[in-house]
Amino acid sequence: MVNYTPFFSRVADNVQGSAIRKMGVMALRDPDLISFAPGYPDPVTFAWEEFRDISAELLASHDSTALQYGPTRGLPGLVDALVQMVAARGIRTKTDEVMVTTGSQQGLDLLGRILIDPGDVVLVELPAYTGAIAAFRNAGAALVGVRQEEDGIDLDDLDAVVQRERLAGRRVKFLYVVPNFQNPTGLLIGPGKRKRLLEWATRRDVLIVEDDPYGSLYFEDSATAADTRPIKTDDTEGRVIYLSSFSKTLAPGFRVAWIVAGEPLVAKLDVVKQTMDLFTGALDQRIVFEAWKRGVLDRQVPKLRAHYQQKRDVMERTLTASLGETVRWPEPRGGFFLWVALPRHINTDELLPRAIEHKVIYVAGSAFFVDGTGKNLMRLSFSLPPVARIEEGIRRLSHLVQEEMTRHPEPVGI
Amino acid sequence: MVNYTPFFSRVADNVQGSAIRKMGVMALRDPDLISFAPGYPDPVTFAWEEFRDISAELLASHDSTALQYGPTRGLPGLVDALVQMVAARGIRTKTDEVMVTTGSQQGLDLLGRILIDPGDVVLVELPAYTGAIAAFRNAGAALVGVRQEEDGIDLDDLDAVVQRERLAGRRVKFLYVVPNFQNPTGLLIGPGKRKRLLEWATRRDVLIVEDDPYGSLYFEDSATAADTRPIKTDDTEGRVIYLSSFSKTLAPGFRVAWIVAGEPLVAKLDVVKQTMDLFTGALDQRIVFEAWKRGVLDRQVPKLRAHYQQKRDVMERTLTASLGETVRWPEPRGGFFLWVALPRHINTDELLPRAIEHKVIYVAGSAFFVDGTGKNLMRLSFSLPPVARIEEGIRRLSHLVQEEMTRHPEPVGI
Repeated sequence: MVNYTPFFSRVADNVQGSAIRKMGVMALRDPDLISFAPGYPDPVTFAWEEFRDISAELLASHDSTALQYGPTRGLPGLVDALVQMVAARGIRTKTDEVMVTTGSQQGLDLLGRILIDPGDVVLVELPAYTGAIAAFRNAGAALVGVRQEEDGIDLDDLDAVVQRERLAGRRVKFLYVVPNFQNPTGLLIGPGKRKRLLEWATRRDVLIVEDDPYGSLYFEDSATAADTRPIKTDDTEGRVIYLSSFSKTLAPGFRVAWIVAGEPLVAKLDVVKQTMDLFTGALDQRIVFEAWKRGVLDRQVPKLRAHYQQKRDVMERTLTASLGETVRWPEPRGGFFLWVALPRHINTDELLPRAIEHKVIYVAGSAFFVDGTGKNLMRLSFSLPPVARIEEGIRRLSHLVQEEMTRHPEPVGI
Repeated sequence: MVNYTPFFSRVADNVQGSAIRKMGVMALRDPDLISFAPGYPDPVTFAWEEFRDISAELLASHDSTALQYGPTRGLPGLVDALVQMVAARGIRTKTDEVMVTTGSQQGLDLLGRILIDPGDVVLVELPAYTGAIAAFRNAGAALVGVRQEEDGIDLDDLDAVVQRERLAGRRVKFLYVVPNFQNPTGLLIGPGKRKRLLEWATRRDVLIVEDDPYGSLYFEDSATAADTRPIKTDDTEGRVIYLSSFSKTLAPGFRVAWIVAGEPLVAKLDVVKQTMDLFTGALDQRIVFEAWKRGVLDRQVPKLRAHYQQKRDVMERTLTASLGETVRWPEPRGGFFLWVALPRHINTDELLPRAIEHKVIYVAGSAFFVDGTGKNLMRLSFSLPPVARIEEGIRRLSHLVQEEMTRHPEPVGI
């Protein structure tokens, strides 16, 4: 057999698989395992009948735009629709500042390729979304973490980090943030802080990559659309690169997401995307476009808010009842995740094999920290499992944690 | 506005848009223009009714694998099916050597990322497919051209090029070839030469990337399945990385293609693809899988052979009648392209703006040559336009060339 070692690139030598994806694949194999690992939307919420009708009509009409090669920037009708969709979130833009991507993951990968040279600094929250970490790392970024507070990123730490990196002679390219129901913490950046963050970025000449997959999925008992107002809304100079997706609102299987960014950036993204996959799936784009036109998206979103809020309630209630004294988490006001802190001496990486024995899995917190911390944290996703499975899964997890606390009582006086 | 210049990466600074894609976009805008530029399949051949039935059934069944996140390597059923599909072409493989990609363009981009470090040599044919050139160039490859003969790549030149590059201290990573109905020349690598090429690659320890989108689309008047036997068929040591696609046989809008490669390569491709788009469209994969299961693919392919053969006949006949003395081309025995040589003093790049005035376009040959040659060549795609448009387009083109010959008669004695 060929020895491939001398053929691999530096990227191939350094790649690490996503912990979340591995957990997801594993969960699929064992139907008894209850998985709180992957942030999958709940397929019972999908607009199956509408998608069936739309696809049947598109294909019956022999409309070649549904199956033929298409423009790299996206189906023109969908690009126009996206301008309107982001306008509803307060973002004023135009068609040459919008591009469709094959999921937001492609958007992140694309941004890595047009903005990062090996060694460039990319700032990420502590903790941050693993898919972003992986994409920027593959582009050769030096990832530097910034602390978070209850209302999101710590602006003092952010400024200190940038000053320190610049003093060390490194180029800081951009800050990556998920301001709405962050993955994994579920936190929101506060409204005043969003403005201060944008002012800071202008002052320090750093770009902001604002990733917003969950913004419309706020829970009406504790948040409003105003709380999720994108940073991009106040951007008058093309400082913010905004990403969002239909994966959480319509379905991830379509792989349709988008970027809003300054026209010179979109022009570069366009030519690089050409070399990556030529264009995003034609039928997928047509279905998503029709679903928007027919009001399916607008009808879905309020239902999703209620659906996921209820699941959050179940997970919180069960967790409080069984481990209320032992664990803490910030209450999610939207999104898919509960970010749970265990006592400091418990290591969630080491606990994972035993969790799998107990037929329950989570994502260990360390996967989200670029500074090697987060050992006592875990991300629990409440979005996919049915209510009864959430309850049963939390009971299994609680049993495991109690067992662990008995085995290894919290050290006193440290 | 932000000055983006200091933020761009080396990749962004160097990207060039694809000439073919630009022509394609332009052609879409003017319905009077006859385009021989993009190699689009003919949508009248698509299995519209079957796709409609399949998608309606999948969505009516609420089968979550049609719309949910899925495994990065591809839908398991489709991966198993691909093992059988390539077996029908003579390639013996197994599931962990197969991966689904979001079009073959993603396969090329992925290979660039796991195999190429900046400055590494990638060998390409003179001329070669522009999408491969762009993907490998973005990965930082030094692209070095190898001459072609009537039966494909020139093995003597290939060996001389590799020796020269190695003497110069450069690492040669792989040779990229399209052995069946090459894009743009339409040429086939001869059967004996395929075996000698593989032996050569083993002797020189170079990998072969075999891109085979057109293999099943041979024309029955002049070629057989045996003529398109993949190089991969004789590969016993994982030397050949084989790519193919459903874009030309089912529809490009699905963005479903695949790679067959040694297991250690697929393992790397898998983790890098995770960071690029997580997974390939779920509904697309399900539709393609069902189309294969139900025999749609097997019924399509013979029809496509006849359909494109007829279009080739029309283009050749019209071109012979109008410019037979002035231009030459190798007869395509399959695929989508006529590769036309004009008299040496005619520059097809310079001619293009006047072609557009004449409402006909082609891709200028220079786009396919990494060594700056090919100025008198043009690629004409006969796959998309209806027969009457092929005839009319060739007449327009002939008129243009005759005009050009009158303006600039061939220099004598040079």
